[in-house]
Amino acid sequence: MRAAVIGATGYAGAELSRILASHPEIESLALSSVSFKGERIESVYPGLLGRVSAPLVGAEEAMDGAGVVFSALPHGLAEESAIACAGRGVPFIDLSADFRFGADAATLEAWYGVRCKRPDLHERAVYGLTEMSRERLRGLAASGKPAIVANPGCYPTGAALAAFPALARGMAAPGAAIIVDAASGASGGGREPARAFHYPECSDSVSPYKAGGAHRHSPEIAMAFAAMAAQGAAPGAAPRAVFTPHLAPMNRGILSTVYIPLAPEWAAPPASGPPRPPSAEALEAEAGIRAAYAEFYGGEPFARVLPAGLCAATNRVRGSNFCDVSLHLDASGSTLIAASAIDNMVKGAAGQAVQNMNALFGFSESAGLGMIPLLF
Amino acid sequence: MRAAVIGATGYAGAELSRILASHPEIESLALSSVSFKGERIESVYPGLLGRVSAPLVGAEEAMDGAGVVFSALPHGLAEESAIACAGRGVPFIDLSADFRFGADAATLEAWYGVRCKRPDLHERAVYGLTEMSRERLRGLAASGKPAIVANPGCYPTGAALAAFPALARGMAAPGAAIIVDAASGASGGGREPARAFHYPECSDSVSPYKAGGAHRHSPEIAMAFAAMAAQGAAPGAAPRAVFTPHLAPMNRGILSTVYIPLAPEWAAPPASGPPRPPSAEALEAEAGIRAAYAEFYGGEPFARVLPAGLCAATNRVRGSNFCDVSLHLDASGSTLIAASAIDNMVKGAAGQAVQNMNALFGFSESAGLGMIPLLF
Amino acid sequence: MRAAVIGATGYAGAELSRILASHPEIESLALSSVSFKGERIESVYPGLLGRVSAPLVGAEEAMDGAGVVFSALPHGLAEESAIACAGRGVPFIDLSADFRFGADAATLEAWYGVRCKRPDLHERAVYGLTEMSRERLRGLAASGKPAIVANPGCYPTGAALAAFPALARGMAAPGAAIIVDAASGASGGGREPARAFHYPECSDSVSPYKAGGAHRHSPEIAMAFAAMAAQGAAPGAAPRAVFTPHLAPMNRGILSTVYIPLAPEWAAPPASGPPRPPSAEALEAEAGIRAAYAEFYGGEPFARVLPAGLCAATNRVRGSNFCDVSLHLDASGSTLIAASAIDNMVKGAAGQAVQNMNALFGFSESAGLGMIPLLF
Amino acid sequence: MRAAVIGATGYAGAELSRILASHPEIESLALSSVSFKGERIESVYPGLLGRVSAPLVGAEEAMDGAGVVFSALPHGLAEESAIACAGRGVPFIDLSADFRFGADAATLEAWYGVRCKRPDLHERAVYGLTEMSRERLRGLAASGKPAIVANPGCYPTGAALAAFPALARGMAAPGAAIIVDAASGASGGGREPARAFHYPECSDSVSPYKAGGAHRHSPEIAMAFAAMAAQGAAPGAAPRAVFTPHLAPMNRGILSTVYIPLAPEWAAPPASGPPRPPSAEALEAEAGIRAAYAEFYGGEPFARVLPAGLCAATNRVRGSNFCDVSLHLDASGSTLIAASAIDNMVKGAAGQAVQNMNALFGFSESAGLGMIPLLF
Repeated sequence: MRAAVIGATGYAGAELSRILASHPEIESLALSSVSFKGERIESVYPGLLGRVSAPLVGAEEAMDGAGVVFSALPHGLAEESAIACAGRGVPFIDLSADFRFGADAATLEAWYGVRCKRPDLHERAVYGLTEMSRERLRGLAASGKPAIVANPGCYPTGAALAAFPALARGMAAPGAAIIVDAASGASGGGREPARAFHYPECSDSVSPYKAGGAHRHSPEIAMAFAAMAAQGAAPGAAPRAVFTPHLAPMNRGILSTVYIPLAPEWAAPPASGPPRPPSAEALEAEAGIRAAYAEFYGGEPFARVLPAGLCAATNRVRGSNFCDVSLHLDASGSTLIAASAIDNMVKGAAGQAVQNMNALFGFSESAGLGMIPLLF
Repeated sequence: MRAAVIGATGYAGAELSRILASHPEIESLALSSVSFKGERIESVYPGLLGRVSAPLVGAEEAMDGAGVVFSALPHGLAEESAIACAGRGVPFIDLSADFRFGADAATLEAWYGVRCKRPDLHERAVYGLTEMSRERLRGLAASGKPAIVANPGCYPTGAALAAFPALARGMAAPGAAIIVDAASGASGGGREPARAFHYPECSDSVSPYKAGGAHRHSPEIAMAFAAMAAQGAAPGAAPRAVFTPHLAPMNRGILSTVYIPLAPEWAAPPASGPPRPPSAEALEAEAGIRAAYAEFYGGEPFARVLPAGLCAATNRVRGSNFCDVSLHLDASGSTLIAASAIDNMVKGAAGQAVQNMNALFGFSESAGLGMIPLLF
Repeated sequence: MRAAVIGATGYAGAELSRILASHPEIESLALSSVSFKGERIESVYPGLLGRVSAPLVGAEEAMDGAGVVFSALPHGLAEESAIACAGRGVPFIDLSADFRFGADAATLEAWYGVRCKRPDLHERAVYGLTEMSRERLRGLAASGKPAIVANPGCYPTGAALAAFPALARGMAAPGAAIIVDAASGASGGGREPARAFHYPECSDSVSPYKAGGAHRHSPEIAMAFAAMAAQGAAPGAAPRAVFTPHLAPMNRGILSTVYIPLAPEWAAPPASGPPRPPSAEALEAEAGIRAAYAEFYGGEPFARVLPAGLCAATNRVRGSNFCDVSLHLDASGSTLIAASAIDNMVKGAAGQAVQNMNALFGFSESAGLGMIPLLF
Repeated sequence: MRAAVIGATGYAGAELSRILASHPEIESLALSSVSFKGERIESVYPGLLGRVSAPLVGAEEAMDGAGVVFSALPHGLAEESAIACAGRGVPFIDLSADFRFGADAATLEAWYGVRCKRPDLHERAVYGLTEMSRERLRGLAASGKPAIVANPGCYPTGAALAAFPALARGMAAPGAAIIVDAASGASGGGREPARAFHYPECSDSVSPYKAGGAHRHSPEIAMAFAAMAAQGAAPGAAPRAVFTPHLAPMNRGILSTVYIPLAPEWAAPPASGPPRPPSAEALEAEAGIRAAYAEFYGGEPFARVLPAGLCAATNRVRGSNFCDVSLHLDASGSTLIAASAIDNMVKGAAGQAVQNMNALFGFSESAGLGMIPLLF
C-alpha cells in the first residue's frame, strides 16, 4: 500500500514519514510540502539520508494513488484533503485538531477559529485515542464509508491514558475536578523557531504557559474525560478538568501528573493527625488500584502499568509508542495520582496515527511500531 | 563579623560560602568540612579561585570566634553545633530539617528518623520562611536568647510563597485540598553522585518521585500551610496538601504549580457549557487576586508578583534570591493556580539563610543578596 | 541462533540486548550479569518492559548453547569467556579493550594494566572496525577457527572513520600530526554514577579531560591510523595522533573534529595576504576531497559523506548505526578538517558489534541495524 | 557617571545593563532600543524586575549626558554613534566588529560587508582585549582624545587568552599553524530565534559550523595572534590560525582547545615507540610551561591558570568575568594544548567591555566585576 503524508516536513509529518518508512504494510511513501515543494525529504532532514528518500510534491499529487492519507498540516487546513479522500474512498487520518470535536463545531471555532464547511465529515470522524476508540475504528472500516480519524492531541493522549481506567471503572468520584499538570518537551512546539523555544530562553528552565484553562487542549481533555466516564457502568456527572501545561528542557516527551479524587469505595481510610509516610492501608489501596489499571490495560500493546516503586519517566518511553502509567495514592487516601509518560512525537502524534491506521486496516496493531525505547 | 559555615563543601554550604563572601557585614569566613578537612574550599570548588579562599577545618574550630553559625550538614547532625552555639550565645541558622518541626518531635522522628536530645532548643527554634517569620525572628533577636533558626526546605519555600497570600487573606476555601505539583533541578539532590542524578539517567527527561505523599517535605508543607492559614482573620479548617515532586533536567530552580480551591467570594462565576477560553469575568477575578497578592507582598524585597501575561519561570530567578509568583484562574473560576519559581540553592537554601541572618541582626534584608538573575 | 551477552546490564550490554532483540537472525537472548544475577533485564531497565525480557544468569550459563557470544564487561575480564568460546568453537565479540591490541601485549598492559594469559588468542583477534576489517572478518569466518573480534572503542571509531579515506588514499601528508578533537556525551562514561557525570557538575558545560595524550584511546587511535595509512598505495611514515577528548552535555553521541595536514597534491593553492572567506579554488579542492571520500565509502551501509554545506552533527545519527562525515578545507588550503558524528552507544559500541557479527556470519551487514536516526 | 547602552535589548546589551546596574562608579543607565523603544528594559527582560529599571529610548536620547557609551548593535551600525561620541569627547566602547580591524578596512569589508566612512576613527580605535591592550587603553585615556574601544569577539577572546603567553614568550614555534577548536553555548547566537538555536534542533547535540575558515572570527583570531606574537623578544613569522567553531548544548560559555606547536626549547624530548601514558619528562616540561603561563598572567585579575590535574570547564566561570586556562603537553612533547573557558556573555562580551571601561577611566579593573562563578 502507498501512504501519503500531507505536510511531511513539519515535525509530526517527518516523524510519520520516519515510522511509515519501516512499516511492513507500507510499500511506498508520497510526501507533500508547501514550503519545500520540489526538494526532497532527506534534504530537509539529512538524518534520513540512506533510509527515507522521496520528493516533496503538492498535496494533490501526493494523495494520488495512496491507499491511506495522513495529514499533518497546521490546524484549519485539513478539510480540503479530507473531502478529496472521502470522494475517493480513501481513509484519512488527521493529526490536526480539525476533526477532533466531531459535531461540536462551536468548540472547534471557539478555540481554533476554524469553521467547518462539511459538517457531515466532522460528524463521521472518529476521535482516535486508540485504546478508547478501537471498536469504533473497526466499525468504521467495516461500514464501507471512507474513514476520517481525528488523531488526538499530545497532551490529551497523556492525560486521557492516565485517567482512562479510573474514569471507566468508576474509581473517580463523579463530577470530580481532575487536575492535569503536564510538562512537555520542546518538540511539541513544532519546527518553526520561536522565542519560547529558543535554546537560551528555555533550556535549564521549567515554566507553565497558557495556565488557567487557556490552552487549546483544554476542551479536548474535557471531551476525552467525559467520553471515558460515560463508559462506566454507572456514570455520574462528567468530571471537570483543570489543565496546566509546562515547558520542560527536553526534546521529546510529555509527563502528565493527573490528580483524581477517588470515589469512596476506592479511597483508603483517612489518616488522622499530622502527615506521616504512607501507611500500610494506603499502600494496599494503591495496590488495588494498580491491579485494576493493569487488568483494564491488560491486552493493550502500548499502555504499560508500572509496578509499585516506579514512577513514569519520559526517558523510558523515548522513541517508542508506549504510554507508561504509574499509580500513587495520596497520604489522605482520597486522591489518586496517576502519572503518565509518552513520547509526544510518537504516541502523542505520529505513532498513534500509525496505530490508528493499523486498527482501521486490521493490521497487527503493533505493525511498524516495534521501536524499543532509547534507554539512555 | 565572622561567619562560620559547618558543612561548607556540600552544595548548600558552598553556595552559602559564595554568598557570604560578598556580604558587606561579613568580614571573614570560617568553613568546616568532615570529608575535606585539611584542604581548602577553592580546591574543592575551583570556580572559587581568586574569590573565596579558606581552609576547611573542624566544626569546633570553625565556630570559634564566629558571630553567626550556619549549619549545612545532612539531617540529624545539627543539634550538637546548636548546643554549642546556644552555650556561647551565638545565633545558629540550620539548613537541615532538624529544627523545622519545633516542638513536634514525633514528626521529625517519623520522617527523618532523628531524635531530639534537647527539646528546649527545638521549641525555641523559629521556622525561617522570612516572609512569614520576620517578626518572630526580630523578636527572637530582641529577646536576648541565642537564636536558632530552622531554614525551610526548598520545596516548602516555593509552595508556601505561592500560597501565602491566598491562605492568609482567606482566598483559599477552608480545609481545601491544595495540590502542590513541583519540579526541581538536579542540584536539589546534593553533591553526592547517585543514579537518579547521573546525567544519562535524568537528562532530557521529566519524572515524578516519591509521589503519593512519601516525600519528607510533605509534613513541612502542611505545617507551613497551616501556619499561614492561621494568620487569616477568620481561619477555618487547615488546608490539606497533596505534594508531588518531580525531577526536571535543569541545574537550579524549583517551579511549583499550586492549585488552590477558592472561597466563594474570590471565585469567578462558573461558566456553563463546554470549556471555552477564559472569559472576561474570569480574567477580572484573576486580576483581583493578582492585585491582592501584589498588595500582600508589597514591601517584600524578594517576592515578585508577575504581571498578567507572564508565567513564573525558573530561569528568570536563576542565581538570585527572588521568588516569582504568577497567578492564574481556572476556567471554572473556582481554582486558583499559583505558580512560583525560585532558585533552589538561593531562596530555597543559602540565600534565604542569609536573608534570615539579615533579619535577625537588623541588617538590610537585601544585604549581600543583590544578585540579579542570570537572564539567559 | 541464540546470542549471549556477558555483562548485559552496563550501558553497552543493555544497548546490545536492545538491538539484538530485534535482529532477524537472533532467535533468543541469554544475558549475564554479576551485579543483578537473579533479576531480569527488564527490572534493571524498565524501558524494556514488553519488548525485551530475560533472566540475568551467570556468564557460564549464558554462554551455554549460544551461537555467538558478546562480552561487554569492563576491561580486563574478557579473556576467560574468550577461552571458553574458543574451546567451543563459538565466535566471541568483545566490546572491551582486552583484545584490541592483538599481539602488542605491552601496550595493553601499559594503558590498561591488563596482562594477557593466552597470547595466541590475542594474536588471532581481529580489530573490528568493520569498514576497515571486513575482509579479515570474513577470512576469519572462512578459516574455520573460532573468531575473536575486538570491537573498537567509541572515540577510535569516530576518529578513524573521519580519517580513513584520507589515510588510505594518500591525501594525508606522510608522518603528519593529526589532531583529533572530540566531544562525547555522558553515556560514554557508563552506568555507574560518578562526579564527572553528576548532572549538576556536567550539564550546561563543556570541558576537556585526560588532555595531553593521557586517554586510553590514544594508542588505539594511533594503531588504527597506522593500519589505515598502511593500506595506501605508497604508504609513508605513519601519522602521529594528538587526541583530546571532551565531555559535552548530551546523552549520546561523539563529534570528532579531525585536522589532517594534506599532501601537496590534495592541498589548495595557498592564499596570500590576510585571512579571507574561502576562495573558489579552496572550495573546489574541498569538493575534490569530498568526492574522493564519497567514492571510498561508496558501498558502505553506514558511512555517510555529507554534501557541501552540511556539518556532521550528533543529533542526525542519534539512535542509529550511521557515521556521518563532513569535509572542510581550511582557508590556507593545506589542512583538511574532517568531522564525524556517531552515536557512541551504537556505531561506537553495540551497533558496530552487531555489524561485526553480521559480517562474520555472512548476514546482510544491515541486519538488525535499520534504525533511522531520531531526528529531533 | 551615567552610562549609555545603545542596543540594550539584545543579549550583549542586556548583560551589559545587568552588570552596569551594580557597578560602583555608574550612577545611572540610559538604554536605547530600536525594536522596543517606548517600553522598559524590565518588560523585555522580566528577570530584571526590581533590580534594573529604565525606559528604552532612542540612541541619541540615550547618549545625551552619558559619560561613557557602549554600543551593542549588530555589525555595521556602530559608526554613527561613534562619530557622535567623538564629537562630544565621550569614550565609546563598541561590542560589534566594526572597529576591530582598525586601519584594515579591507578585512572589515571582506568579512562583514561593512564600509568605513570615517577611517580616522577606525585607525584610532584600540582593540580591547584588556590583557593585551591595557597600556594602549590607558595611553588613549591620557591622550585627551576621545577613546574608541573595539571590544573583542567572544571566540577571539577565548582563543587569544589561551595562546597569549605562548606567543608572547616565544613558546610557540614561529610561523606555526595553531588549531583553535572551540565550542560555544547558544547564547552566542543572540536573541533572535533561528533554526540553528531552536531547542529541538540543537539540544543534546554537538556540531561544527562554518568550518574551514568560514567564520567571521577567523581574521580576528589571526590578527590577535599576530599582535601577540609581535610582543615577543624575537618574533618570527606570524602564526597561522585554523579555527573551527562548534555549537554545544549549553547556554553560556566558550571552551577553546588550542593546539600550539612548540618551539624546540619548550618541547619535551620525543618519546620513541608506541604511544604511552605521559612520561615524567613530559609532565615536567608541561609544569614548566604552566609556570611560565602563571608568571605571565600573575597580576591579571581575571586570567586564572589552573593547577595541574584540572581542565578548563565552562561551568567554573559561568556568570563571571574569569578566563580559565589549563595547559597540557601532548605525548610527543611537541604540541601544547591550551584550553580556555570563558562565559561568552561576560568575558566574551559585556564583562570585558566593562573591564575596558575600568581600564580607560582608571577605575579598579575589577570594579563591578566581582561576580563569583555560579558553581553548579
